[in-house]
Amino acid sequence: MAVSQLDETHDPSRISWVESANGHPDFPIQNLPFGIFSPGPDSPRPGVAIGDMILDLVAVSSLLPDEVRSCLDGANLNGLMALPSVYRVALRRRLSHILSTEALWAEVAPSLFRAQDCALHLPAAIGDYTDFYVGIHHATNVGALFRPDNPLLPNYKYVPIGYHGRASSVRPSGVPVVRPNGQHKGPNDAEPGFGPSRRLDYELELGIWVGSGNALGHPIPIGEAQGHIAGYSLLNDWSARDVQAWEYQPLGPFLAKNFHTTVSPWVVTGEALAPFRTAQPARPQSDPAPLPYLLDASDQMNGALALDLEVHIVTQRMRELRLPPFVLSRGSSTSMYWTPAQIVTHHASNGCNLQPGDLIGTGTLSGAEPGALGSLLEIGRGGTSPIALPGGETRTFLEDGDEVTLCAHARVEGHVAIGFGACSATVLPAP
Amino acid sequence: MAVSQLDETHDPSRISWVESANGHPDFPIQNLPFGIFSPGPDSPRPGVAIGDMILDLVAVSSLLPDEVRSCLDGANLNGLMALPSVYRVALRRRLSHILSTEALWAEVAPSLFRAQDCALHLPAAIGDYTDFYVGIHHATNVGALFRPDNPLLPNYKYVPIGYHGRASSVRPSGVPVVRPNGQHKGPNDAEPGFGPSRRLDYELELGIWVGSGNALGHPIPIGEAQGHIAGYSLLNDWSARDVQAWEYQPLGPFLAKNFHTTVSPWVVTGEALAPFRTAQPARPQSDPAPLPYLLDASDQMNGALALDLEVHIVTQRMRELRLPPFVLSRGSSTSMYWTPAQIVTHHASNGCNLQPGDLIGTGTLSGAEPGALGSLLEIGRGGTSPIALPGGETRTFLEDGDEVTLCAHARVEGHVAIGFGACSATVLPAP
Repeated sequence: MAVSQLDETHDPSRISWVESANGHPDFPIQNLPFGIFSPGPDSPRPGVAIGDMILDLVAVSSLLPDEVRSCLDGANLNGLMALPSVYRVALRRRLSHILSTEALWAEVAPSLFRAQDCALHLPAAIGDYTDFYVGIHHATNVGALFRPDNPLLPNYKYVPIGYHGRASSVRPSGVPVVRPNGQHKGPNDAEPGFGPSRRLDYELELGIWVGSGNALGHPIPIGEAQGHIAGYSLLNDWSARDVQAWEYQPLGPFLAKNFHTTVSPWVVTGEALAPFRTAQPARPQSDPAPLPYLLDASDQMNGALALDLEVHIVTQRMRELRLPPFVLSRGSSTSMYWTPAQIVTHHASNGCNLQPGDLIGTGTLSGAEPGALGSLLEIGRGGTSPIALPGGETRTFLEDGDEVTLCAHARVEGHVAIGFGACSATVLPAP
Repeated sequence: MAVSQLDETHDPSRISWVESANGHPDFPIQNLPFGIFSPGPDSPRPGVAIGDMILDLVAVSSLLPDEVRSCLDGANLNGLMALPSVYRVALRRRLSHILSTEALWAEVAPSLFRAQDCALHLPAAIGDYTDFYVGIHHATNVGALFRPDNPLLPNYKYVPIGYHGRASSVRPSGVPVVRPNGQHKGPNDAEPGFGPSRRLDYELELGIWVGSGNALGHPIPIGEAQGHIAGYSLLNDWSARDVQAWEYQPLGPFLAKNFHTTVSPWVVTGEALAPFRTAQPARPQSDPAPLPYLLDASDQMNGALALDLEVHIVTQRMRELRLPPFVLSRGSSTSMYWTPAQIVTHHASNGCNLQPGDLIGTGTLSGAEPGALGSLLEIGRGGTSPIALPGGETRTFLEDGDEVTLCAHARVEGHVAIGFGACSATVLPAP
């Protein structure tokens, strides 16, 4: 299991000459996530986040390793993602060196742009988007709402459950989400109606960006899976619960989900996350062992990610009253029943070909505690238990004008904390 | 509802100077389907099938309408598909003129290639692939196997049921399909096992190619849906039934389907199919009317397609004994409960953005009669009722070496019949 080794890029004493990076909650020099940005009116290009700034990788390409230079000329990171991970490791080490070496300041500083002046785009041209369901507390909570007698189905502890989503409607943080119209049928309605969803929800997920792919018919062994992951983002799997309840049998969610998916624009690499690996606390020892194709001793030991997750909301009224964001939940990514490596290996186990830039959602990451639930469906108990917001409002599901923001930070003793940046969008009325 | 008008391209008396086109079962001059082909070692390019030949559209581009010329320089038809359908109509009329005008023979003949000498590719770079479930007899038959007490769920006659599939693993006719490994669990097994699927099946479907797209958040009215369809192919939705039975709850089919999907390489246009439109025989008058967003008088009258469908099999043993293909079924596309226009409008009804070159499967098209079933699951009654093949073999599901071929032909009194060409692939052993 090729989990990245710690190296000098993780050194907590390393600081950057980009002063805003030092102590930055998301983007200190120990993070160095990749993304696609536009500096002003210029065309989209690859960059790396450092403090409040973005480094233009094209502008400094003469300082970068030969192997990556040819991958930097597009408006997406697919070429960079397709490289064997050893090249991304080399690029990370070079960038860490450049941004921490005072003597390079004069040469590099002109290629830095203030992030607040830049537009951020999707990091990749997404070929296929797949969503999993590995948050076991979420699966149990939602299962209990849809099937009170049978919340967790018999396959859950053997199969990393997943389904295909819509690649065309994935958007970066900041693009508003339009409330969808759809069919819904209440328990007392004789026939379904069609109109704006009345139960619009968010889902707190991680996104996994596929790095190098596999050929059709050629599975990815579990020991190699980590090497096929380019990095991670936050992902909001917007969901129309009323549409979902009516449409989802027998073939799963469709229009309830595919109207919009939001991702945070920065790809946080597996290398940056190396200090924040952990064993799988969400899989009790008493549970059945993973089948051999999903079992790897190293993955069991430290294949899971320990990230602190948070969801905020700001409503139109809260904006008018200038109230601060309200915290809807605080949880952890350790609620994943399957590791990212297990997800990738399972996905390719039938020979399905993954491609660089493919996006995989983990599924909603809810904790076991009431304050750690990753969707309003769970927080409001299926719409029966409204939550009170500052300013005197209540919510069971989202209203037009609500802005939902997902955050993730990795924190562990002895290392500099890093973050993912915001994954945020505001709800617009249905057309 | 913009169903194409009949024009001189449909004239049954029109013949081509490409002699093999006249009387050709699939590609007479009244068809003129588009595809991507390679003549020998040359690069893939757009072409049109005429009899046993393929016309290189790039080579004759000076004879074609200005608007389409710039769309012909790629290795896919996405640019051509993106054009408003009026341009494809103009291109069809021009091609029909060129290929029926003797005086143009000397100029055009050098741009014709024998189809048997050419490689055929996917016609489009597929952004998203969606599979529907509109064959009502199939839904009833399969529902009865999985849920004997509840074959057709309450949503079926209101919602065109669909789910997202895998775009990366769609392949053109002729590419072998590798038997997938996967988890399966028999009724008497304490735990699931992992290994080659023992219940590999085909599914007879039509594929719908999306033409011009819609922007995210902007639905497609039912009256405009036909204009967003570039054309049709045959589609084989290979399915591992044992994997499907174990994995599919609660989020639908995933690894049971995404290892391979085969399409026939020629895009038969809506214009070519104009004489073969019909009302919807699969929707009885006593059923609930479609909700208003799916209801269009013209679509009700002639929005369905009347195609004769056939499935053949040739096994390894049959090949050795030089036996002819065995007919597994003969049916009709009139078993679709929803029209192509309703499928497109429903898909975009929540604002989901469709893009040129997207692929939509109809779902398995089984007739009501025993000889018209579109999958082995149905023909062999869930594996309980083996069928006898010539050469002394039997089948409940597919064996390695089996070649499955789907065919479609449109035939109606007073018009020249047209066909789709073969959709064919052979099963290879699991890795």
